[in-house]
Amino acid sequence: MSKSTGCCQDFLHYVFDYETPKTLVIPSIRVGFVFRFTQFLVVLYVVGYVCVVQKAYQETDSVSSSVTTKVKGFAYTNISDMEPRFWDVADYIIPPQGDNSFFVLTNIIMTPGQTQSRCAELPNPSTICADDCDCIEGYNDPRGNGIRTGLCENYSSTVKTCEVLSWCPLEIDTNLPKRALLAAAENFTVLIKNSITYPKFNFHMRNILPHINSSYLKTCEFSRETDPDCPIFRLRHILAEAGEDFQDMAVKGGVFGIIIDWSSDLDWCAGKCYPKYTFRRLDNKNPINNVAPGYNFRYAKYYKSPNGEETRTLIKAYGIRFDVIVFGTAGKFGIVPTIVNLGAALSFLSLVPIVADWFMLTCMKKRHLYSKQKVTYLVEEPETESTSIGTMYGTQ
Amino acid sequence: MSKSTGCCQDFLHYVFDYETPKTLVIPSIRVGFVFRFTQFLVVLYVVGYVCVVQKAYQETDSVSSSVTTKVKGFAYTNISDMEPRFWDVADYIIPPQGDNSFFVLTNIIMTPGQTQSRCAELPNPSTICADDCDCIEGYNDPRGNGIRTGLCENYSSTVKTCEVLSWCPLEIDTNLPKRALLAAAENFTVLIKNSITYPKFNFHMRNILPHINSSYLKTCEFSRETDPDCPIFRLRHILAEAGEDFQDMAVKGGVFGIIIDWSSDLDWCAGKCYPKYTFRRLDNKNPINNVAPGYNFRYAKYYKSPNGEETRTLIKAYGIRFDVIVFGTAGKFGIVPTIVNLGAALSFLSLVPIVADWFMLTCMKKRHLYSKQKVTYLVEEPETESTSIGTMYGTQ
Amino acid sequence: MSKSTGCCQDFLHYVFDYETPKTLVIPSIRVGFVFRFTQFLVVLYVVGYVCVVQKAYQETDSVSSSVTTKVKGFAYTNISDMEPRFWDVADYIIPPQGDNSFFVLTNIIMTPGQTQSRCAELPNPSTICADDCDCIEGYNDPRGNGIRTGLCENYSSTVKTCEVLSWCPLEIDTNLPKRALLAAAENFTVLIKNSITYPKFNFHMRNILPHINSSYLKTCEFSRETDPDCPIFRLRHILAEAGEDFQDMAVKGGVFGIIIDWSSDLDWCAGKCYPKYTFRRLDNKNPINNVAPGYNFRYAKYYKSPNGEETRTLIKAYGIRFDVIVFGTAGKFGIVPTIVNLGAALSFLSLVPIVADWFMLTCMKKRHLYSKQKVTYLVEEPETESTSIGTMYGTQ
Repeated sequence: MSKSTGCCQDFLHYVFDYETPKTLVIPSIRVGFVFRFTQFLVVLYVVGYVCVVQKAYQETDSVSSSVTTKVKGFAYTNISDMEPRFWDVADYIIPPQGDNSFFVLTNIIMTPGQTQSRCAELPNPSTICADDCDCIEGYNDPRGNGIRTGLCENYSSTVKTCEVLSWCPLEIDTNLPKRALLAAAENFTVLIKNSITYPKFNFHMRNILPHINSSYLKTCEFSRETDPDCPIFRLRHILAEAGEDFQDMAVKGGVFGIIIDWSSDLDWCAGKCYPKYTFRRLDNKNPINNVAPGYNFRYAKYYKSPNGEETRTLIKAYGIRFDVIVFGTAGKFGIVPTIVNLGAALSFLSLVPIVADWFMLTCMKKRHLYSKQKVTYLVEEPETESTSIGTMYGTQ
Repeated sequence: MSKSTGCCQDFLHYVFDYETPKTLVIPSIRVGFVFRFTQFLVVLYVVGYVCVVQKAYQETDSVSSSVTTKVKGFAYTNISDMEPRFWDVADYIIPPQGDNSFFVLTNIIMTPGQTQSRCAELPNPSTICADDCDCIEGYNDPRGNGIRTGLCENYSSTVKTCEVLSWCPLEIDTNLPKRALLAAAENFTVLIKNSITYPKFNFHMRNILPHINSSYLKTCEFSRETDPDCPIFRLRHILAEAGEDFQDMAVKGGVFGIIIDWSSDLDWCAGKCYPKYTFRRLDNKNPINNVAPGYNFRYAKYYKSPNGEETRTLIKAYGIRFDVIVFGTAGKFGIVPTIVNLGAALSFLSLVPIVADWFMLTCMKKRHLYSKQKVTYLVEEPETESTSIGTMYGTQ
Repeated sequence: MSKSTGCCQDFLHYVFDYETPKTLVIPSIRVGFVFRFTQFLVVLYVVGYVCVVQKAYQETDSVSSSVTTKVKGFAYTNISDMEPRFWDVADYIIPPQGDNSFFVLTNIIMTPGQTQSRCAELPNPSTICADDCDCIEGYNDPRGNGIRTGLCENYSSTVKTCEVLSWCPLEIDTNLPKRALLAAAENFTVLIKNSITYPKFNFHMRNILPHINSSYLKTCEFSRETDPDCPIFRLRHILAEAGEDFQDMAVKGGVFGIIIDWSSDLDWCAGKCYPKYTFRRLDNKNPINNVAPGYNFRYAKYYKSPNGEETRTLIKAYGIRFDVIVFGTAGKFGIVPTIVNLGAALSFLSLVPIVADWFMLTCMKKRHLYSKQKVTYLVEEPETESTSIGTMYGTQ
C-alpha cells in the first residue's frame, strides 16, 4: 500500500468514523418516569400552547384595505334662530366623498352675510377701550378676530371696543344650541363597503359576504345579535353600543371609531375570514385636561353679491367624525416560523436529560451506584499529576 | 492544609472539573455516511432555504409613505341635456387636493336651481295619493325625498303624489347617461409623487429615481415594457392593465387601486430599492350581491340669488376613485433574527446523532457488536436489586 | 411468570429504562475555565443583548391612530395685484376638516370672473398663428388650455394666437409672487390631538398626557427643550427644526411631515408611553430631476351672476401640506417569543461542550491521556473485521 492510500484512508477515517457517546442504561422506573414525564411536559407545551393556542407555525401579514361609505337620511329643522330648513346628504356630509372618514354635521353656528369690512371687536378685557388711544393701529391680537384699525367704536350702547378689519359681522360662537340642531341625524344610516387584501397571501375579501343576497342588503340593518353581517349601520345604534348617547355627543361633536377587525386564520376555510365590527369613541368625553373639546371646524360658502362684492356665510360646524379603522393580521402556515419554533422546542427537549440526570444523581437512594458507573474520574498516568493539580488549585 | 483550603479545593473541583461524555468510535463508512449526509441536509436547508430564499436573518420594517398626485387633462362635452361645457381640473377633481386618494368625475346627474320649497314627490307606490288624507303631515319616509306637508298635488297631468318640503325641484336620478359624459377622461394623465421611509433603518426613497432626469419626466408616460420607472400614468392604460374598460367603468364609477410595492432588501445596494406598480379594481364589478354598485356621491354648489334666496345645484357625481396604496417591507441583517434562526438550525443538528444512532443500532449487520460496546447495563451490587426491579415493574 | 407478563416487562423496560451518557471527569482547571468562560459568554449574550437591548422576549403590535388638527391664526394681505384682504381659517385651510393631513395656503394665483367662453390662447410656439388655417377646429392640445375653435385671434396688439373654447379669461400662472402672499402664516399655530391604540394589548393613549392641565394647554407652545409635551405647534418653529425656512418653502409650497413616534415598552409603567415628535420635509427641495416642484393644486369657487350665467374664480393654491404621520411599535412580554429566544440560546449552550472538547483534545499537553480515556475504538470480534474495513475504505 502506497503512502497516499494511507493518507486517503486517514482522511476517510477522519470524515466517516462515527463517534457516538457511550451510554449506561438505568433500569429504574422512577428515573425513567421523571425522564418521560419531563419530555411529555415539553411536548405538551409545544403542541398545545405554541401550535394550537399561539399558532406560532404561521407567518403573518397585515391587512391593506379600501373603504367607501355612503350616508342616507334627511332632517328638517325649525328653530327660532334660523329659517325652517330641510337638510339632505349634500348639506350635512362634508366633504361629500365617502372615504374611510366621514363627518356628519349635527350642530351649527352660522354667520351669514360676512364681507371684508370693519367692525367693533367682540367685547372682552383686552378689546374694550375708552378712546382711540387704547387701540394700536395694525396690532394683530392672536386671540382677537382681526387687524386693529386704531379706532374705538361702539359695540353696543354700553360698551366700546376696538375696531378691526375682518370678515364682518364677527362670529359670536358662545350661544351654541343646547340641543343639537340636527338631532334627527341619529336616525341616519351609513353603508360601509370595505374590500381588503392580504398582499403576501394574495387573499381578497369584501365585508359584503358571499352568502348575502341583494334583497337582504336593501332592507337589513346591523345588529350584533340578529344581523351581525349587515354592512348598514344606524348611527344611534352604533353610538349606543359604545356606551355613548347620540344627543349628548351631537351638541359639541366628537370623533367616533368604527373598527373592523379582519384577523383571520387562512389555513382553514377562507370563508371563515369574517369582519368583526366594534365601536369606540376616539376622543375623550370629559377629561379634565382638554382644549377644544368635541369636534368642530369652520368653513365658508362664498357668494358674489349683485354689485360684485364677495360675501360669505361662515359656518362653524359641530359634528361627529366617523373614522373607519380597518386592521387585522392573517396567519398562514409558513415553513420558517415552523422550523424556528420546532427548533426552539427541540432545544428544550435536549434539557430533559439534564433534569433526569440531576434527579438520578441527587434524589435516588442508589445515587452512588449510578454515579460510580456513569462517571469515571480521569486516571492519571504514574505520579505527580494529581498532586500538581492539587497544587494548581491551591495556588490560584 | 487547613480545612478551608480543602473546602476551597472542593469548590474549585465542583466548578472547574470538566465532565465530558465518553465516546465510542465506529469505523463504519455506512454509519459515517448516514451521519454526514443527514448533517449535510440540515446545513443545506439552513443555508439554502432559510438564508437565501427566506432571508430569515433579516429584521423587517414596514413602509411609511407620503403621496401627492396631480391630474392633467381637459374635456369638452356637448350632449343634448346640457349646455356645451368645457371641463378642466378644477371642475372634475373633487376634492381638489392631490392626496393619496383622488376622484375623477366621469358621469353626472345635475339638478340646477334647487331651493328650499315644496313640490310633489317622485311617483312610486308609497307616494302616489288620491287626496290629502293619504298624506300624513310631517311624515318622514326614509326612502322619500322630504317631509310631507299633508297635501296631495299633481305630479304630472295623470299622477298625483304627496307634496314634500325639500330642496325642489327633486333630483331624478334614473336617466343616467349610458355613455359616460366625460368619456374623454380616459386620456387624462396623473403624476404620482411618492416618497417613502423605513423608519427603523432611517432609509428614504422617492419614486422619481435618481437616474431619471427632468426632461425625460416632462415627456414620459408609464408603460410596463418601455417606461417602467415613469411616474406619469394615463388613466386608460392603467385600467386596461387591470383588465378593465375605462368606458365601461366610467358610466357607474368604481374604485381603482394603484398599488406601489416597495418591498426591498436593504442589505444590498440601496439603489436596488425600486417601486413596483400594479393596478387592480378594488370594488366588485358585477357581483350578484351588491348595493349601490359603482361609486358616486352627491354634492352641491350653493348660490345666492339676487333677492338673497339660497339656491343650489345638486350634483350626483359618478366617477372613479383612485386609491394609491403603498405597501412594502424592507429587510436588513439583524443580529436577533440571525441568532434565533441559527439556534433553531443548531437544534436540528443536535438531532443528527439520534438519527445516526438509530440507523447504527437497527439497520447495520454488526448492530449487536455496536450496541454491546456503546451501551452498558447497570451492574447491580450484590443481589436483591434486579429481582426487586422485576417485582416493581410486575406489580405496576 | 406468564408470557404476557414478560412481554409487559419488556415494554416497561423499553419505555422507562433511562439511558444516560457515561462521562469522564477531567480535573483540569484550564479546560474547566475554557468551558465555563464559553458558557458565560453565551449567557452574557442572551441576557445582555437579546433580553436587555433587543427585548426579544416581547411580542409587538403596531399602532392604530386617530388624529384631529386645528389651525389658528389670521393674516392681512395688501399687495398691489389684489385688493386688501383679511384671511382667516375658513379661507386658507383647504379642506376645512382637521384630518391627519391639512393644507395651509401660502401663495396664490387668482383668476376671477372666468366664464365658459372663447378667448385667444396664451402665446407659445405651438399656439401662435398667422391666420385661421393654422388653427384646426376641435384640436385638443394636451399642453394647451382648451378646444380650438378654428379661429386665429389677437392675443395682444402684437401677437395672434388660436382661439380656444375654455374658461376665459385664461389663467396666467407665470408671475407667481416672489414673496409668499400669506407670509404671515408662519405665525399660525396648530393643535394636534392624537389618540392611539395598540389593539393587541388593548392599550389606549392620547398625546395630551394625563399630567397636563387645561390652563397650561391654553397658553403653551411646543418647544423641544422647554415644552416637549405641548401639542400646539407654531408652523415657523417646526419648519425651522427640520432645517427649512418658512418663507422659502411658502413661495412654491411643499409637503411637510409631523411625525409622531409612539414606540414604547408596555412591560413597564404605561405612563412611560410618550409621543416623540420629529419633523421632516417630505418632498425634495432642490432635486435636479423633478417635475412640478413644490405643492400646488387648482380649485374654483363657483358663482352665479345675476343673469344666471355661471362664473368661477379659479385659484391656483400654493401652500404647505402637513402630513401627520403616526407610527410606533409597542412590545410586551409574550410567552412565544420568550420561548423561541430561550430555545435559540440553549442551542448555543449545547455548542459549548464541543468547544471545550476541541480545546481539551488539541491544545492541552495531556491531550493524548484525555483522548485515550474519553474515546474508545470499537473492538472487533475475532479477525477479518478490521481488515475488511481497511479494504472497504481502500476500494472506495
